Amino acid sequence: MASIPDFSKGQPCEGTSGVLPAIAQDAASGRVLMMAWMDQVAFDETLSTGQAVYFSRSRGRLWRKGETSGHRQRVTEIRIDCDADAILLQVEQVGAACHEGYASCFFRVVGNDGGATIADQRLVDPASVYGKA
Amino acid sequence: MASIPDFSKGQPCEGTSGVLPAIAQDAASGRVLMMAWMDQVAFDETLSTGQAVYFSRSRGRLWRKGETSGHRQRVTEIRIDCDADAILLQVEQVGAACHEGYASCFFRVVGNDGGATIADQRLVDPASVYGKA
Repeated sequence: MASIPDFSKGQPCEGTSGVLPAIAQDAASGRVLMMAWMDQVAFDETLSTGQAVYFSRSRGRLWRKGETSGHRQRVTEIRIDCDADAILLQVEQVGAACHEGYASCFFRVVGNDGGATIADQRLVDPASVYGKA
Repeated sequence: MASIPDFSKGQPCEGTSGVLPAIAQDAASGRVLMMAWMDQVAFDETLSTGQAVYFSRSRGRLWRKGETSGHRQRVTEIRIDCDADAILLQVEQVGAACHEGYASCFFRVVGNDGGATIADQRLVDPASVYGKA
């Protein structure tokens, strides 16, 4: 079945018919947790399983979020934007969304001078999750 | 001055040295309003002016958000993600973020069957803002 996101508008990405940006937002706190990519297969699996599945451009394969860390995302709502080329997930996040151990990948604030400062506390030690940092 | 977002990781886009996804979140409500793209020039202007500036891939030029509609975004915080390839803005939105007149571009919810349903109310009539819908 055709899905609403229009993957033909997606960025070219080998092994896919295009990838679209997907934003994961914490359903409880409203915090934006991460931005990743989905292809049609990842989107369909997300929709059918209720667990966030992305397409990892660096690994060139589906990325079932939490498959290594256990930090899964249960999806409570999926929205698409006006142009059908961006996806917004509301998720219940287990553990830390970020592979660096922060609740959100957006843990750095950019100051007026363009420099970045870590503004959050680590939730977990990445070494304890992935074996090494 | 080099900025923290790494535009060399961006998607190729003519007239730029790469574009990165930029998410605008309402600073007051936490609502994700839109996802657009920034190149280095757009990012630098956003940082220096405190008004959201994107790069419009369809128009091939800088897009000073609200330049036609008046629906500007005053930026109260800029964050970058762990990989320095996605940008998160907290904004004070004037009017409607979406060119279709909705507060957020993400006004459609995807159901379990893959179909989309409009879940929000229009804030403004696009015809009154842009001259025609």
